[in-house]
Amino acid sequence: MDLGLFTANNVWMMVATALVFFMHTGFAFLEIGLTRQKNTINILFKNIFIITGGLLLYYAFGFNLMYPGFEDGDLGILKFAGFGLDSPEGGVTAAYADGGYTYWTDFLFQGMFAATAATIVSGAVAERMKISAFMVFTIAYVGLVYPVIGSWGWGEGFLDSWGFYDFAGSTLVHSVGGWAAIVAIALLGGRIGKFSKDGKAKAIPGHSIPLATAGVLVLWLGWFGFNGGSVLSADPELTSLVLVNTSLAAAAGGFGAIILSTILYKNLDLTMFLNGILGGLVGITAGADVMSPNESVVIGIIAGLIIVLGIALIDKLKLDDPVGAVTVHLICGIWGTLAVGIFGSLASGEQFLTQLYGVLIVGGFCVITSGIILYAIKVSLGLRVTREEEIEGLDLHEHGMDAYSDFTINED
Amino acid sequence: MDLGLFTANNVWMMVATALVFFMHTGFAFLEIGLTRQKNTINILFKNIFIITGGLLLYYAFGFNLMYPGFEDGDLGILKFAGFGLDSPEGGVTAAYADGGYTYWTDFLFQGMFAATAATIVSGAVAERMKISAFMVFTIAYVGLVYPVIGSWGWGEGFLDSWGFYDFAGSTLVHSVGGWAAIVAIALLGGRIGKFSKDGKAKAIPGHSIPLATAGVLVLWLGWFGFNGGSVLSADPELTSLVLVNTSLAAAAGGFGAIILSTILYKNLDLTMFLNGILGGLVGITAGADVMSPNESVVIGIIAGLIIVLGIALIDKLKLDDPVGAVTVHLICGIWGTLAVGIFGSLASGEQFLTQLYGVLIVGGFCVITSGIILYAIKVSLGLRVTREEEIEGLDLHEHGMDAYSDFTINED
Amino acid sequence: MDLGLFTANNVWMMVATALVFFMHTGFAFLEIGLTRQKNTINILFKNIFIITGGLLLYYAFGFNLMYPGFEDGDLGILKFAGFGLDSPEGGVTAAYADGGYTYWTDFLFQGMFAATAATIVSGAVAERMKISAFMVFTIAYVGLVYPVIGSWGWGEGFLDSWGFYDFAGSTLVHSVGGWAAIVAIALLGGRIGKFSKDGKAKAIPGHSIPLATAGVLVLWLGWFGFNGGSVLSADPELTSLVLVNTSLAAAAGGFGAIILSTILYKNLDLTMFLNGILGGLVGITAGADVMSPNESVVIGIIAGLIIVLGIALIDKLKLDDPVGAVTVHLICGIWGTLAVGIFGSLASGEQFLTQLYGVLIVGGFCVITSGIILYAIKVSLGLRVTREEEIEGLDLHEHGMDAYSDFTINED
Repeated sequence: MDLGLFTANNVWMMVATALVFFMHTGFAFLEIGLTRQKNTINILFKNIFIITGGLLLYYAFGFNLMYPGFEDGDLGILKFAGFGLDSPEGGVTAAYADGGYTYWTDFLFQGMFAATAATIVSGAVAERMKISAFMVFTIAYVGLVYPVIGSWGWGEGFLDSWGFYDFAGSTLVHSVGGWAAIVAIALLGGRIGKFSKDGKAKAIPGHSIPLATAGVLVLWLGWFGFNGGSVLSADPELTSLVLVNTSLAAAAGGFGAIILSTILYKNLDLTMFLNGILGGLVGITAGADVMSPNESVVIGIIAGLIIVLGIALIDKLKLDDPVGAVTVHLICGIWGTLAVGIFGSLASGEQFLTQLYGVLIVGGFCVITSGIILYAIKVSLGLRVTREEEIEGLDLHEHGMDAYSDFTINED
Repeated sequence: MDLGLFTANNVWMMVATALVFFMHTGFAFLEIGLTRQKNTINILFKNIFIITGGLLLYYAFGFNLMYPGFEDGDLGILKFAGFGLDSPEGGVTAAYADGGYTYWTDFLFQGMFAATAATIVSGAVAERMKISAFMVFTIAYVGLVYPVIGSWGWGEGFLDSWGFYDFAGSTLVHSVGGWAAIVAIALLGGRIGKFSKDGKAKAIPGHSIPLATAGVLVLWLGWFGFNGGSVLSADPELTSLVLVNTSLAAAAGGFGAIILSTILYKNLDLTMFLNGILGGLVGITAGADVMSPNESVVIGIIAGLIIVLGIALIDKLKLDDPVGAVTVHLICGIWGTLAVGIFGSLASGEQFLTQLYGVLIVGGFCVITSGIILYAIKVSLGLRVTREEEIEGLDLHEHGMDAYSDFTINED
Repeated sequence: MDLGLFTANNVWMMVATALVFFMHTGFAFLEIGLTRQKNTINILFKNIFIITGGLLLYYAFGFNLMYPGFEDGDLGILKFAGFGLDSPEGGVTAAYADGGYTYWTDFLFQGMFAATAATIVSGAVAERMKISAFMVFTIAYVGLVYPVIGSWGWGEGFLDSWGFYDFAGSTLVHSVGGWAAIVAIALLGGRIGKFSKDGKAKAIPGHSIPLATAGVLVLWLGWFGFNGGSVLSADPELTSLVLVNTSLAAAAGGFGAIILSTILYKNLDLTMFLNGILGGLVGITAGADVMSPNESVVIGIIAGLIIVLGIALIDKLKLDDPVGAVTVHLICGIWGTLAVGIFGSLASGEQFLTQLYGVLIVGGFCVITSGIILYAIKVSLGLRVTREEEIEGLDLHEHGMDAYSDFTINED
């Protein structure tokens, strides 16, 4: 391959890597914006732990667990290529990965993805989970569960062999996080004050909607890299179509959510608008390269409707999800994965069933593994902070710090 | 064309698209930072509406209204190429647009531009315009007026045939927003308390200068894409010259403004510094590819001086523009457009007159169309919130939310 | 060279330039986040002054002082190629700089670097230095000292001839800022209340840890360009290895710092985690292209340990450095520079000594020049605000503004 083309491909993939890294800023902003001030340091600590820890785990063994080089006779379920990184022969030439990028870019792009699953859980368990418990969970889930599942779909494992299609991870990333999130909040229980005695959910407003909004815009920006980079080269046709589909689905998701929410609740609810955008983004992620722009708009609108209904459903189930992570990442992740069987160039009954099997297998595995990990933590370390700590805030009790110590108000 | 070059071009244009998208975060930060806390949700809602709605409108018909494919006999005023997107033959190959980018990138880059005009208006009308009125205005102005004017200059319409030159939109984007902004604030009137009984303007300080500053830095970053992408390829000479000119004009604009404002008001006024940067950016936008760095510095400095004088003038005219949008986008937009006739490789008396005609024609059309739209809204929906709503804040009345609900202060 | 490759190279360098520009947003966030609310406008003003002024100075003469074109007989200490920019023959073709980028990109990338040194000082002297004094210092130090030192290492001067290796500026950028920072805080003295009568340092908490955290994430993102762009082309092997090493060192630095700080202080201290990341980034900067990923992790961990010990040391020395700038940029800058002699493909006893000589020569020159500049300011303008101004805040006294004027709290 021509060196100019190989270089252009690798440039795009490095840009995409930077954008996916930046998503962690978006997740952090979104989560602190939608939660209370007294838990801000705790949430930021978790996010910084996830990025740094996630990357180091992926370097130590995750990458080699996710891309182990299954061979023809393998079942494609579990294989490990060894610890650490070691650029293979040709790994920095156009001979690697059809000239789409180098081995190093490959590792870093995938490594930035890896931490996302834990970030999704972080939002759902916010304001009540022990930091030590969360760190142990993250190490186990991001270090082991995520890359093993990833190997099934993207590392030439059995889901890939079956024809399961998940372009950039509606299932393999978002619902992997989402399943653990729902298991975790079921085990944890709701925050004090979330549900009244008669079981009704009460809104606990977040402390900074500007940060939450900025978070969603940064995530949308990051999705240019998340989906755009999942082409695994800078192929002009595919990358640009993927960006168009991604942005249209985001916009349509926002509209779907705000329209339904305004009809139902008679209120121009900004947080529904924002979660609708995220729903659209997660929804298009599985099929961003096989849809037309029109289909992307439809997928996005439906994701937006799902957001409004899903958030109401989670409340009904007395599950307390402060940032709507389960609805956004799990339910819209499932929707996006199934949509590949309904719309676009791969649509067929058979494909739909394959997608459904993939969703169920991944879901089953995630529920079991996250359940085991979280239960083990529950009976050892404990999952939840004490009542006093929760009321006074995790910042003070877990970190001895306050997010806005010096913030004072002018009494002009 | 060589596939490597086509791919590199398209990569640059996708990066530019992402950067222009990110400008909406900058606009949102700037606007909420310079206004009061009680209207923060409202402003964020408008910004999210603008991005999502703007993109969907541009997809539905705006793109085909702006690039309708005028033919030789056409007057070049109005033509429509049909609803939706449909990649033309060769649209994803180097045969499209001289290999500068694909049809999909073309749409998305232009789509990210489209919403900007409404964002400019949003800042000017902040803190008092009804959200319903703003949404209707946005749909009409971004959906119809902006693409029609765009077709005159960039869609091979009559302004282009005349030789009118507006590289990245000092007139076609910024003053299109700026004209509507001045019409809107004239129709709306000032915020309660802005003008004292003897007609003097009083400063109404914003609630977060850090966010306003971050907004300006994000906008400057975004301008790397706004101007750099307007080369419509990654041509090394032009793109890099454009980035140098853009950044030098921004820096010079900041200096022009802070020096004059310090002389006049004996105060190191950060907001003047920030608006000076924006003025420099808008000022260089029309001619960023035809100026030398020295000329860009001069254009920037003059834009900075204009900022200080313009903001004083707007106050004198008893127009209430909370973020300085009219001065930044309209007055500096006109300055930048005329500067193409004065400086750089196109400078000539004839070019100056052509630039002036362009400014006047676009201005006249914008004033008339925005006036009609806004007047129609005024007599139907109404433009302005009630006195009570304005005093208590739009967040509470239009959205039933508060931006910082849980924010509390430590009484150590 | 093939036009596709030249274009891809230049695209990467423009992206890197944009990322380095964005670092100034990161520095601003970090500095205001870690300091008190009453000095926020002052800090933002300094940061805006640094970017705009730094770029204009580098355009006026800095670039030609840093890359003067030393010839064979020159000592390689001082030469000046004239005022302003003037693209040389071939400056916009692949004939320039081996086709890595154009002359314009060269200027802008380096120009974005130039201001960094002053930004580092800004953080260290926060909350007590006169704005006029800071502006004069910045002009002299960024305009003259930084480019002269730069010419020794990167402009083919004598350090380069000796074989001193500093890939992206652990010494030439970070410690140049760090040396001036330590001189400045020694001359300035600590903030009122920083040291108790018995000489113990007390923590003065910052007013927004979310902004500080966002600042670190933005800086890490910016380092993709800072180090990635220092390859001076888009060479796939080198750029992607550099990004891997940079991110691994950042993550390892964070871990090194949080583990040691938790052991020592029994506290999950988020600011140590953040400064550890920055330490890792500064530490890998000198050798990001000559290390393996494993070596980068080791360099990062050591940098993280240095952060915890260094911050304690600075406190012990009764130096008041509100953001930890000296530890991050000077001490980790020295560590990173020496590490090139210990790890990686250049490691040797001779190289270590060369690195050490470079550190000492640059350090000596920085201490002397910054000392002279700051002392001259001290005896003329004065360095420090009055006691009253410091207590009431620099925002009110130096700028007549408040960062959060309208911020009010709901008393629900």
